[in-house]
Amino acid sequence: MKRNLLLTPGPTQVPPQLCEVLGRPIIHHRTPQFQENIKQVVEGLKEVFQTKNDIYILTSSGSGAMEAAVVNLLSPGDKAIAVDGGKFGERWVELCQTYKANTVVHKVQWGKAPTAAEIKSLLAAHPDTKAVFITLAETSTGVTPDVKAIGEAVKNTPAVLVVDAVSGLAVQEIKTDEWHCDVVVSGSHKGFMLPPGLAFVSASPKAIELINKCTSPRYYFDLRECKAAMAKIDTPFTPAIGVMIAMVESLNMIKKEGLNNMFARYAHLARAVRAGCAAIGLELFPDPACSTNVLTAVKVPAGIDGEKLTKTMRDTHGITFAGGQDHLKGKVIRMAHMGALDEYDILTGLACLEKVLHQMGHKFELGAALTAAQKVLNSKG
Amino acid sequence: MKRNLLLTPGPTQVPPQLCEVLGRPIIHHRTPQFQENIKQVVEGLKEVFQTKNDIYILTSSGSGAMEAAVVNLLSPGDKAIAVDGGKFGERWVELCQTYKANTVVHKVQWGKAPTAAEIKSLLAAHPDTKAVFITLAETSTGVTPDVKAIGEAVKNTPAVLVVDAVSGLAVQEIKTDEWHCDVVVSGSHKGFMLPPGLAFVSASPKAIELINKCTSPRYYFDLRECKAAMAKIDTPFTPAIGVMIAMVESLNMIKKEGLNNMFARYAHLARAVRAGCAAIGLELFPDPACSTNVLTAVKVPAGIDGEKLTKTMRDTHGITFAGGQDHLKGKVIRMAHMGALDEYDILTGLACLEKVLHQMGHKFELGAALTAAQKVLNSKG
Repeated sequence: MKRNLLLTPGPTQVPPQLCEVLGRPIIHHRTPQFQENIKQVVEGLKEVFQTKNDIYILTSSGSGAMEAAVVNLLSPGDKAIAVDGGKFGERWVELCQTYKANTVVHKVQWGKAPTAAEIKSLLAAHPDTKAVFITLAETSTGVTPDVKAIGEAVKNTPAVLVVDAVSGLAVQEIKTDEWHCDVVVSGSHKGFMLPPGLAFVSASPKAIELINKCTSPRYYFDLRECKAAMAKIDTPFTPAIGVMIAMVESLNMIKKEGLNNMFARYAHLARAVRAGCAAIGLELFPDPACSTNVLTAVKVPAGIDGEKLTKTMRDTHGITFAGGQDHLKGKVIRMAHMGALDEYDILTGLACLEKVLHQMGHKFELGAALTAAQKVLNSKG
Repeated sequence: MKRNLLLTPGPTQVPPQLCEVLGRPIIHHRTPQFQENIKQVVEGLKEVFQTKNDIYILTSSGSGAMEAAVVNLLSPGDKAIAVDGGKFGERWVELCQTYKANTVVHKVQWGKAPTAAEIKSLLAAHPDTKAVFITLAETSTGVTPDVKAIGEAVKNTPAVLVVDAVSGLAVQEIKTDEWHCDVVVSGSHKGFMLPPGLAFVSASPKAIELINKCTSPRYYFDLRECKAAMAKIDTPFTPAIGVMIAMVESLNMIKKEGLNNMFARYAHLARAVRAGCAAIGLELFPDPACSTNVLTAVKVPAGIDGEKLTKTMRDTHGITFAGGQDHLKGKVIRMAHMGALDEYDILTGLACLEKVLHQMGHKFELGAALTAAQKVLNSKG
């Protein structure tokens, strides 16, 4: 009777209401019945994206939607600015380079965010830039940039702003239209509390203009075909029907709670986790000035093996945190607080973290993280 | 209390055993627990593909796997032979042309199959061909070619044979290794009785050699990355976790029934459906010499609106057949007999077909299709 608690930055917990829908027999996708689903999903997504732009639905992981953004916006040789401050920024760089964009890589120290001023000066130095690629919640480091300010920096240039919101959407604020985000990509398995399988792409009129001019070959991820299909309330290829049907219920849950209440809940959980971690001597990895509420990345104390820590929590206690990636392997642990989680899940995660850290010899008073988190959880925030 | 019976060539019925698994909370994919799943799925797939070749798992619909085959095998300008005898053959042509292959299109009349002799003479005329693309079960027409003979025609040339088995795998025989099929692609939502979301690609050593030489840019569908990840029992990107876990159970069900018993069951159902259709004056659309057991495509009788027929069956009675595609729209109906179906489902489908055809004024004796089918179902086959 071991728990199965996912405190990972994707996939996230699937709540019982959505498990129930996922367990129903599916229907055929080329029917008026399924079109009703597509309609509701697109309408619901527009509210979450806070956009009036087109939304396209792909059957892929989030990386598929990232590829769609690159191959539909950039022709070979086109100039792109890609911000690389972690694993997912690196993915933008790899995608741009793979598809032969003339890629200006803006390296940012892991744990720090790119600034609007940096983007502005890069755009001034490269006025022929077609697209700027950033990450809303860089889960490898726990960082979020000031997307609104970056949007201001990009909007009056010929470039489009492309935001990887795979991990951030429906967890932290992103105002697609107000912040001038031309393309925003996301997926079903983070803020939407569902298994991976569906990905979403929004495209502004400025982006659509670029998509129509783009000469890069594309087929499965061709957003022109998505647009044409969407006009008929259809998808170009067979969609992940099961996840699509469950998306209707996920979006209903989000609507019922209210976007702003959700953002506040995640922010509240994030504060509690950080207070808990601080109380047992775990230092936040990212610069606190730019940390995202999607997850908390903390440094593993000296002398503790971070990989063994997360492995024991998962394999012995059924509570899954994420470890560090690349050069942070073993040096950082990451506890996500997004998806179908409440304060008791957070306390459970911290209790398990205390238990295993204690067993591994880290010195602190048992209960200290719980107490600190509990105080925040019961404050007005 | 309307039925929801899918007699469509994908998606197919999801049986209760698999619904139950799909309704469970998911686990994280970068864990030993999930690796156990991947291992079992790959092993099970090798039995169904009848191959010792590599198998790669993608998160996409079947068309994503088709794209993977094209972008990993063909560099721009490479010569390819693509057989186009229906909607899915057409997809091979579109993919090859999109990715700038020098594409020799072998047009085959809808309802007829390409022959090994034709492929042989095309290969003789185009000895620089890198790949030949065919379809195991062309569901738009109900046709299956002699893949074994085509494999013989291709094997001693420099070309690889690529088979779209999205609809055919686990329904009708395909012996990947014995028949010299270098690349076979399939998906989760046909013979495997699951929702769409996962796709599978097998690759022979001859194909892998081509994959490694291929210069076409690719990222999400890069089979070199799949191979590297598979060596570590991993996937390059977050997989459709829910469907992957359910695949273990699907493969168990297939193993329990036995591949040959399954093929025999589908063949038996196909004979019953065809006898039933013939008894009420519905003529088979494809040449009977090359018809697949995946589905039965029959011509709509003169004076009957085929679109209205399938619409009424679905919307009034909850029983979904597929209509005709392209120039066959309204002129053909297609009843699939693959997936989690038994003889009673087939009789249900025929009963509904009789009911609506009768209401629409087609002349026949009510019960004739049921009787003919029932006789076949209770024969030794």
